[in-house]
Amino acid sequence: MTHKSSQGETGIIQRYFAPLAEHTPGAFGLSDDAGLIATKDGMELVLTVDMIVEDVHFLPNSDPGDIAYKALSVNVSDLCAKGAEASVYLLSIALSGTPDPNWLKKLSEGFADAQTDFDCTLLGGDTVHTTGPVTLSVTAAGFVPKGRMVHRTGAREGDRVYVTGTIGDAALGLAFLQGAGAEFLSAEQGEHLSGRHKRPQPCLRAIPVVRAYANAAMDISDGLLGDFAKLCAASKLGGFINSADVPLSDAAAHWLAKDPDRLGDIVTGGDDYEVLMCIPEKKIPAFERDCVSAGLQISSIGCIASRSEGVRALDNEGDTLEFKHPSYDHF
Amino acid sequence: MTHKSSQGETGIIQRYFAPLAEHTPGAFGLSDDAGLIATKDGMELVLTVDMIVEDVHFLPNSDPGDIAYKALSVNVSDLCAKGAEASVYLLSIALSGTPDPNWLKKLSEGFADAQTDFDCTLLGGDTVHTTGPVTLSVTAAGFVPKGRMVHRTGAREGDRVYVTGTIGDAALGLAFLQGAGAEFLSAEQGEHLSGRHKRPQPCLRAIPVVRAYANAAMDISDGLLGDFAKLCAASKLGGFINSADVPLSDAAAHWLAKDPDRLGDIVTGGDDYEVLMCIPEKKIPAFERDCVSAGLQISSIGCIASRSEGVRALDNEGDTLEFKHPSYDHF
Repeated sequence: MTHKSSQGETGIIQRYFAPLAEHTPGAFGLSDDAGLIATKDGMELVLTVDMIVEDVHFLPNSDPGDIAYKALSVNVSDLCAKGAEASVYLLSIALSGTPDPNWLKKLSEGFADAQTDFDCTLLGGDTVHTTGPVTLSVTAAGFVPKGRMVHRTGAREGDRVYVTGTIGDAALGLAFLQGAGAEFLSAEQGEHLSGRHKRPQPCLRAIPVVRAYANAAMDISDGLLGDFAKLCAASKLGGFINSADVPLSDAAAHWLAKDPDRLGDIVTGGDDYEVLMCIPEKKIPAFERDCVSAGLQISSIGCIASRSEGVRALDNEGDTLEFKHPSYDHF
Repeated sequence: MTHKSSQGETGIIQRYFAPLAEHTPGAFGLSDDAGLIATKDGMELVLTVDMIVEDVHFLPNSDPGDIAYKALSVNVSDLCAKGAEASVYLLSIALSGTPDPNWLKKLSEGFADAQTDFDCTLLGGDTVHTTGPVTLSVTAAGFVPKGRMVHRTGAREGDRVYVTGTIGDAALGLAFLQGAGAEFLSAEQGEHLSGRHKRPQPCLRAIPVVRAYANAAMDISDGLLGDFAKLCAASKLGGFINSADVPLSDAAAHWLAKDPDRLGDIVTGGDDYEVLMCIPEKKIPAFERDCVSAGLQISSIGCIASRSEGVRALDNEGDTLEFKHPSYDHF
């Protein structure tokens, strides 16, 4: 109902987005109204969508390359935790004012980096105008062998709870970017933490072990404790996490040692994009062996219990820890 | 990076969106991070996405049921024009402030109406907060027999150009809602035109004939002339549209007779969601017969020509018509 400017929607699409689709067989150079996914025998398709909004999910002065990278990363992370390999994605983006060519160039470079890292390509999209903050919605599609998608609902009492990688880096990285922690951290440590906030890495190496061994899995986006509680609720069970077993990077461990109150940020802050998995006891030896072979860092951090036990984080003495906001909620 | 409120993201999803997914086998009650599409032998999957923004695509005081209906409709329309039957959709939505339960209820009712009308259901989504206008992104997925997706690129010189239904109603409907035309139209005519703006109907009946007969097709969303020009460009050809042959509803014909300047709105205004098809001469008898059997209203409005002829709309004397904005562009 408003609009018109010089660059043109078609020009923007062809200049900045079509190169991201040039190796996607079903994208037809983004010249059509829709993209095509050739199905594969014996495989099903997993779809997920995440929307990110300036001021809410990223700071207004964020590097557009980082915004793009993260937008694709968080979707690929969802697919990984379901045992699915990302294949293609669609991008809808609302831009305000007259789009800055330099900003768009950096955005498309961020998507190009992420595509290379995650082995998926652009299938299609929509580019529109907004009167508000820049808003991106990425829908990613990935393949999983028929019947092998891993759900949140499949946990069983007695399952061991594992996480990949290290937890809390992104939340501490955001705090660092907002001015905290400089007195405790080396430049390198600060860089490590903020890097994990800016360009989270979906855990691609987890895909085969999730498929092969997990009763239930999900990626950690809204905070370890809150997401663990969601998985337990979906499985109609309870569970424990031993906070001392939560894996920390050197930088996070260093900061926490100087400032123990940061434990809340670490276990509830979110943006980890690690995989939380529930592994039945009898499969643990094979699971751990395959993780080693795959070079996948995992940590056993707790177990699944009956519903009546509730969902709890325990300290070294086995006492329940309390946090103000167990996980991120938009409303 | 901001907030918290009472209703909760999970509460909103379970109350307003989960009912839309209760008959989607792969949605798992929206309790998981991703949805599953069971593939079908001999079929491929077509995906499309459209983003709609308050103030840009709909007026701030619009009925939320209409917003929802249109958001799904425009995507299903894209699929129809590619010969694909909608199966499922994903919805990402950015809401500002504290979401009004009544607004959300009406929104979900609009999606429920559209689902029933278009025979598809919700697979998944994402609900986030925004500091700006309400923004929805709908990704729809539909099945098409292998190798049968119809493209913009397939037109051949000499193809007849057809459109379904009537053109211009939605653009006139928007003008009517903004205060124009009341002196020319009956209440019923105004209602008809504004209804087509508020709740466009994707042309489901066109799917089998598009698949069976069209060399090229697309849905008309940004205006007949501009979209026809895009199809010609994608096919590297030119073409003509005879403006006198463009099919009009009684209401549109009535308004145009009183106010001939409205022809621009009709052929360039957009939001028609009818299907533009290029049919090779030798298939026309069978095509027209099948359209009659299917109860599908079609009109022959022009033809595909060589590239050197350009893309033109002709008046009754065969002279080229000129319009200020041949189609809608966001930038």
